[in-house]
Amino acid sequence: MVNETKLQTPPGYRILDIDGLRALLAGLPLREKLGGDPKEWTIEEVGDGNLNLVFIVRSSATGFAVKQALPYVRLVGDSWPLPLSRAHYEHMALSIQAKHAAGLVPAIHHYDKTLALIVMELLDPHIIMRRGMISGIPYPKFADDISTFMAANLFHTSALAHSAHDFKGLIADFSGNTALCRITEDLIFTEPYMMAENNRWTSPWLDGQAASIRADVDLKCAVSKLKLKFIGSPEAMIHGDLHTGSVMLTADDTRVIDPEFAFMGPMGFDVGALIANLLLNYFSQIGHEGHVGARDEYRVWILDAVEQVWMLFRRKFIAQWEAHGTGDGYPAVLFEDPAGKAILARERDAYMDRLFRDTLGFAAAKMIRRILGLAHNIDLEWITDEQTRATAEARSLLLARDLMVNTESYGSIGTVAEAARRINALVPDIKGP
Amino acid sequence: MVNETKLQTPPGYRILDIDGLRALLAGLPLREKLGGDPKEWTIEEVGDGNLNLVFIVRSSATGFAVKQALPYVRLVGDSWPLPLSRAHYEHMALSIQAKHAAGLVPAIHHYDKTLALIVMELLDPHIIMRRGMISGIPYPKFADDISTFMAANLFHTSALAHSAHDFKGLIADFSGNTALCRITEDLIFTEPYMMAENNRWTSPWLDGQAASIRADVDLKCAVSKLKLKFIGSPEAMIHGDLHTGSVMLTADDTRVIDPEFAFMGPMGFDVGALIANLLLNYFSQIGHEGHVGARDEYRVWILDAVEQVWMLFRRKFIAQWEAHGTGDGYPAVLFEDPAGKAILARERDAYMDRLFRDTLGFAAAKMIRRILGLAHNIDLEWITDEQTRATAEARSLLLARDLMVNTESYGSIGTVAEAARRINALVPDIKGP
Repeated sequence: MVNETKLQTPPGYRILDIDGLRALLAGLPLREKLGGDPKEWTIEEVGDGNLNLVFIVRSSATGFAVKQALPYVRLVGDSWPLPLSRAHYEHMALSIQAKHAAGLVPAIHHYDKTLALIVMELLDPHIIMRRGMISGIPYPKFADDISTFMAANLFHTSALAHSAHDFKGLIADFSGNTALCRITEDLIFTEPYMMAENNRWTSPWLDGQAASIRADVDLKCAVSKLKLKFIGSPEAMIHGDLHTGSVMLTADDTRVIDPEFAFMGPMGFDVGALIANLLLNYFSQIGHEGHVGARDEYRVWILDAVEQVWMLFRRKFIAQWEAHGTGDGYPAVLFEDPAGKAILARERDAYMDRLFRDTLGFAAAKMIRRILGLAHNIDLEWITDEQTRATAEARSLLLARDLMVNTESYGSIGTVAEAARRINALVPDIKGP
Repeated sequence: MVNETKLQTPPGYRILDIDGLRALLAGLPLREKLGGDPKEWTIEEVGDGNLNLVFIVRSSATGFAVKQALPYVRLVGDSWPLPLSRAHYEHMALSIQAKHAAGLVPAIHHYDKTLALIVMELLDPHIIMRRGMISGIPYPKFADDISTFMAANLFHTSALAHSAHDFKGLIADFSGNTALCRITEDLIFTEPYMMAENNRWTSPWLDGQAASIRADVDLKCAVSKLKLKFIGSPEAMIHGDLHTGSVMLTADDTRVIDPEFAFMGPMGFDVGALIANLLLNYFSQIGHEGHVGARDEYRVWILDAVEQVWMLFRRKFIAQWEAHGTGDGYPAVLFEDPAGKAILARERDAYMDRLFRDTLGFAAAKMIRRILGLAHNIDLEWITDEQTRATAEARSLLLARDLMVNTESYGSIGTVAEAARRINALVPDIKGP
């Protein structure tokens, strides 16, 4: 039983049930969009995430998705409180993303701060990308769309686009979202590298690898450096949880959802999160194909998507910078002549090279946490045969460890794809019961 | 005539004159410390800085320094408004510094937010270090004291000492000080590298060097990278204006004053500012010695201080980290065994090496702005012979340009001192009228 007093919810907050939501919606202007008699609206609670309630509301005319934050982590219960303010940060991030990447996020129809509730466009027939990839569905527009989303949002919330004054305003606006950041700091950058109660892995198969990672001082040093960057490098407003479970899409429409982890952080964390989840799915295909090699063509698609995502992101970010580089970083007025333009072009390349290295490091951290930490993902979890799952996981860990410690040896995204292919052909050194 | 309405001062704010201050102090509890009849207190306005009013109040019993922010830049007048909130940031910074570096800042006796006024300990017989150095006075305790000040404040306001939550609270607390940061962004990182109305230099002697700096794309790229770091790298609460004019001292007592530019920024900016001002004074000695070579011994002292400041700072920062590294950066729990301790020690060295490079870059930026930008300093300005002043300035620019563009070639602070000595013996290529 939830103790709402203990969890310090604000006056007026209550956890909605289906009838409560029906009554709420019936009193809002958007009732007209739904039309008809509220009693005839179908409402179901469908949240399968870790944190919130999610309702689907349908009438004969239209539908909405309604997300309400709970004052605790849904997955765990009220022993793990989590502030309702995350709905505020999600709403703020969605509004900013809608401005910079129109059409790539769900439209917002209503926000109720007291109830920590957002009424959004119902994405239909979109499915969660992670599920699509487990089924082997290629998404031809995905790399193009997601690279647009990332380049636009990351560039336009950075000091390359903003005055220092506005940029610091953004930092302050998001600086209170520390409870959500803390989850990332603990579960991604710390716990997988130590004995922690939250950790779990495919045991005994991965016991050896988990132990070597806990003893790997080079890796622990590298992940700590990334953690410090996560805490102290507010380069842009990042989504903060940009994995394939935060993407809903069809063959020709892509939307990014759930930015409640948004804050001003390092750009490479978003790009890395996405690439990590593509790579994890790549290694997981061994557990989802009907017969050996049945998904070979899909594997090619995934690694091609990895390459496309980075290359398109890089190109689009630079294009944004060239077209809209009016911020206080690298002031245009200093680089107006041909020699200035030339050196600024070189500097943009160097900036993207640095961002690429960040991306690989963060990608590696995101891969490791999904195998050794608290929160796993269904790409791997749905593989019921333990040896097969452990094989996919062991390969993921091998690539991730190398990406994080030997980052400099990866000169291009092509070499990452090549390493993934090579490692996917290895028989990992794992032992069963 | 100041238009206070236009400058949007808050209700209750008024610019104090001597009688107004006398009346104010007479109504405060600290009246008792001053004692006697308020009419017998001597009060004089002595501010020689660019921004504020500064009063010295003395009674037969004691004395205070009183600083009041004006709603504009004193040096320029009400055409250049500047928010009174800087007194708030100064007060907050002084309080934090007093906690981490007790005895190295003036004690605060009273703060009036409405009047943007701080009553502080009167530092007596302390003098401004810049003036002491122009007179050739060595300060044997200085390097030790200032390195303690910097190491303690920078370490203890970083994510190496704080939880991410508290660290981000600090970032938010100082994020509004953008008007002061803007002065730095414009006057230090931008204007000296372009034709700007504010700029001035010893003309025609330095016309050639000023023009080459405006055309130097490598330098402009390097300074822009530093500017972006200044805006977007909140590593710690920095003083923000830590030159030798912000240090008051005697042979055995050192105090750092005037932290109104404080914000969460890159640590190297403070260390670099200090080293830059020592180096500028070093090059200026040619204009202050009674006969050629009269200040040779003092020159040795200055370069020794440069080396000591960095080496002691580095050692003390690492010592703080070893003793108090309980923050979220590099979590101690991951580095508990001997191998972990060893790699963390190497990582600390790498951290300081990176900070050293930042320091040199920021030092260079601070040197260039004092010669080509709006605000000059008396080390150089007091040299009345133009050729002598231009010689000192040209040498400073030569070193600064190399420090900023070829930073990597300086492997130690010793090589910086060596370069300064070498450049101080060069006859620069400058032409008079």
